[in-house]
Amino acid sequence: MTSPVELILKKRDGGRHTPAELAELVRAYLAGRVADYQMSAWLMAALLRGLDETETTALTQAMLHSGKILRLRSVRAPKIDKHSTGGVGDKVSLCLAPLVAACGVAAPMIAGRGLGHTGGTLDKLEAIAGYRVALDGARFERILREVGASIIGQSAEIAPADRRLYALRDVTGTVESIPLIVASILSKKLATGSDGLVLDVKAGRGAFMPNVARARELARALVRTARRAGLPTVALITDMRAPIGRTVGNALETREAIEVLHDRGPADTRELTLVLGAEMLKLAGRTTTTAAARRLLERALADGSGLERFARMVKAHGGDARVAEHPERLPQARVRVPLLAQKSGVLTSIDALELGWVSVGLGAGRLRAEQKVDAAAGIELCHGEGDRVTRGEPLAYLCASKRSLIDAVEERAARAFTSSTRAPRTPRLVLERIAG
Amino acid sequence: MTSPVELILKKRDGGRHTPAELAELVRAYLAGRVADYQMSAWLMAALLRGLDETETTALTQAMLHSGKILRLRSVRAPKIDKHSTGGVGDKVSLCLAPLVAACGVAAPMIAGRGLGHTGGTLDKLEAIAGYRVALDGARFERILREVGASIIGQSAEIAPADRRLYALRDVTGTVESIPLIVASILSKKLATGSDGLVLDVKAGRGAFMPNVARARELARALVRTARRAGLPTVALITDMRAPIGRTVGNALETREAIEVLHDRGPADTRELTLVLGAEMLKLAGRTTTTAAARRLLERALADGSGLERFARMVKAHGGDARVAEHPERLPQARVRVPLLAQKSGVLTSIDALELGWVSVGLGAGRLRAEQKVDAAAGIELCHGEGDRVTRGEPLAYLCASKRSLIDAVEERAARAFTSSTRAPRTPRLVLERIAG
Repeated sequence: MTSPVELILKKRDGGRHTPAELAELVRAYLAGRVADYQMSAWLMAALLRGLDETETTALTQAMLHSGKILRLRSVRAPKIDKHSTGGVGDKVSLCLAPLVAACGVAAPMIAGRGLGHTGGTLDKLEAIAGYRVALDGARFERILREVGASIIGQSAEIAPADRRLYALRDVTGTVESIPLIVASILSKKLATGSDGLVLDVKAGRGAFMPNVARARELARALVRTARRAGLPTVALITDMRAPIGRTVGNALETREAIEVLHDRGPADTRELTLVLGAEMLKLAGRTTTTAAARRLLERALADGSGLERFARMVKAHGGDARVAEHPERLPQARVRVPLLAQKSGVLTSIDALELGWVSVGLGAGRLRAEQKVDAAAGIELCHGEGDRVTRGEPLAYLCASKRSLIDAVEERAARAFTSSTRAPRTPRLVLERIAG
Repeated sequence: MTSPVELILKKRDGGRHTPAELAELVRAYLAGRVADYQMSAWLMAALLRGLDETETTALTQAMLHSGKILRLRSVRAPKIDKHSTGGVGDKVSLCLAPLVAACGVAAPMIAGRGLGHTGGTLDKLEAIAGYRVALDGARFERILREVGASIIGQSAEIAPADRRLYALRDVTGTVESIPLIVASILSKKLATGSDGLVLDVKAGRGAFMPNVARARELARALVRTARRAGLPTVALITDMRAPIGRTVGNALETREAIEVLHDRGPADTRELTLVLGAEMLKLAGRTTTTAAARRLLERALADGSGLERFARMVKAHGGDARVAEHPERLPQARVRVPLLAQKSGVLTSIDALELGWVSVGLGAGRLRAEQKVDAAAGIELCHGEGDRVTRGEPLAYLCASKRSLIDAVEERAARAFTSSTRAPRTPRLVLERIAG
């Protein structure tokens, strides 16, 4: 066996690890034979020296095999997972999973919580009274078999190496490495035993990757590594400069997702759901063309079958399924204050990053993993980019449990809106598609 | 205060730290506000991204000020320290410190122990019955005042940050960084309050720096940083391909140092003592020319005043001073086996690295800091490079406490000697002199 220091020296000096070395590194770390201070030195060396595709694949496999792998063999439908790199106002998973299920594709999703300025799907689902995100593998499999859609949290059994490595990276300045990000994401995605994966890699101010070049680099690395690991994968790079849809905050976003399933809701949330859904249907082999896939999905929105799946998914998770028809049952904020336009003009930009942090300030997010979120808090936008606004009319409503929280973020919220007399940029939702 | 992660990110991304940031990093580390796993990530980033001269000086100062600084104000003689980067058979400190003391220069030396293939001055001194290397600052100062030479070990009070950082670097693959090496060496050297420093930077197979280019880089960084910190410093780059002198091992080397003080002993050990001593005398302002300095030193060898200082130094440290006249009182190995020449010819090379490891195998060194050494074990060389040897005559004697230890290293020892019918290289002791 190679010693921990030898492995560190090899990467430090620009060497390439064998798959066996990376497997041993991860195994030894979990067994306590590699200390945190050794792993963090290796992580920094890996961040600065890089890992090539073979190394990234091997690290992903090593992390995957540190835990349980769900096979979901009893689920007969093709199983397609969808993962987003995180954004502001991104509630798409909530409507997408039941919608594709209504089209004959099972959607096994393991989602995360919000951290920093980005929201998390689990927090949004927990805005529904009773919804349980912590289910064991057997229960997950049964819901997928019977309903076709299930969204749960990562259990301690899935890729425990990722859980420990992520916590270490977070406090040692080693988060921003594409190979390490790829291994972290894919080790969990591979653990669900899906037949395919659609990635929504977000680019822009509100995203983890602030520019398209970097998002493209991440998307390509994800697609290549996933394919090398045997998982057919397609990535869309989507715009994350402005929030998605008209809501930011847990219950508010869940309500918007339900709106979409009622065949209403903001055009961009609906469109993002359709483009991602079309990729899922194609990966599953349900259709060969995007147009045919969209027709199937649009029908499931129009005939209510997507909404019906949503209600069944919520019920199977122990949640109050009545929210599907009565979204007013979701928690509502005690205080709701309008943010008024300071001048008239056309809204040229709405800053997702700023509004993400405003939402955290209102109580909807967390700065540390152990914090609780306020399900009702958040932002309701009255307009999208390109809309004409008149001085004095509400741009948005800020929602919180008490007035003082709103007062503290009001100025920041106002700064997030830029208006001009010139015509705004034409927003494009999907910037690129990467399929290997 | 900047957070630990921000400091790591700054260095990771190639930024330059302010002196205040480095002071805070060291302070926070010692106070437990920066964890080992964060420090090791920073160390790896610093190794790969580098630290410039200003940063190296600031880190050195931060480490220096983590502990006590001896001022040695009552020592009236100019105080010149000497430091070697470590080699095989390097017993020079033992004869050099008393020799310069006999010439009116105080030599306050804080020495180390052997680790890996290199020996340590403290282990050599402890071969003398009773010699105590752990003395407090007041006792150290009194010996320097009264005798002019004292060699002690690093106390816990001196640069504690270096002690912790070195232990961490050792297990995280972050030893081989010139700025980190410089800060480690100089933080301890500055703590003795010397008026000048002579560095013996060794280059070649038996040294820490295997080639001259790298040794030069280290020497320059040491000299520049020491001068910026206010310590006049000169470095000699000396050859460390073959062992110095004719002995490797603790008591054996102490005996050779005593030989030199008797105005005998191997030419190279004597010469290295004289060239380093001349630099010390010049830095102290005792003479302006090397020739004059050498004359003073040679007189102190010839008239026995250097030997007399050695005996007084040993006595002041609680050691058996009779070894000065009776080196046979030093521990002697129970087993002593000749290593015979396999063929006749001229010895073209004697590999210091191999013989260093052979010596460790015989019991003279240690692989882990907590191991004990056998004072009597080691190697007596019968020849130096360039000597003509005849098949069957002894090249060396291997000394150990039992035969099995010798058997285990005999082959390796034989491989360390290369002979040829061609003329050998002309050995040069001092390869370069760097004085700012």
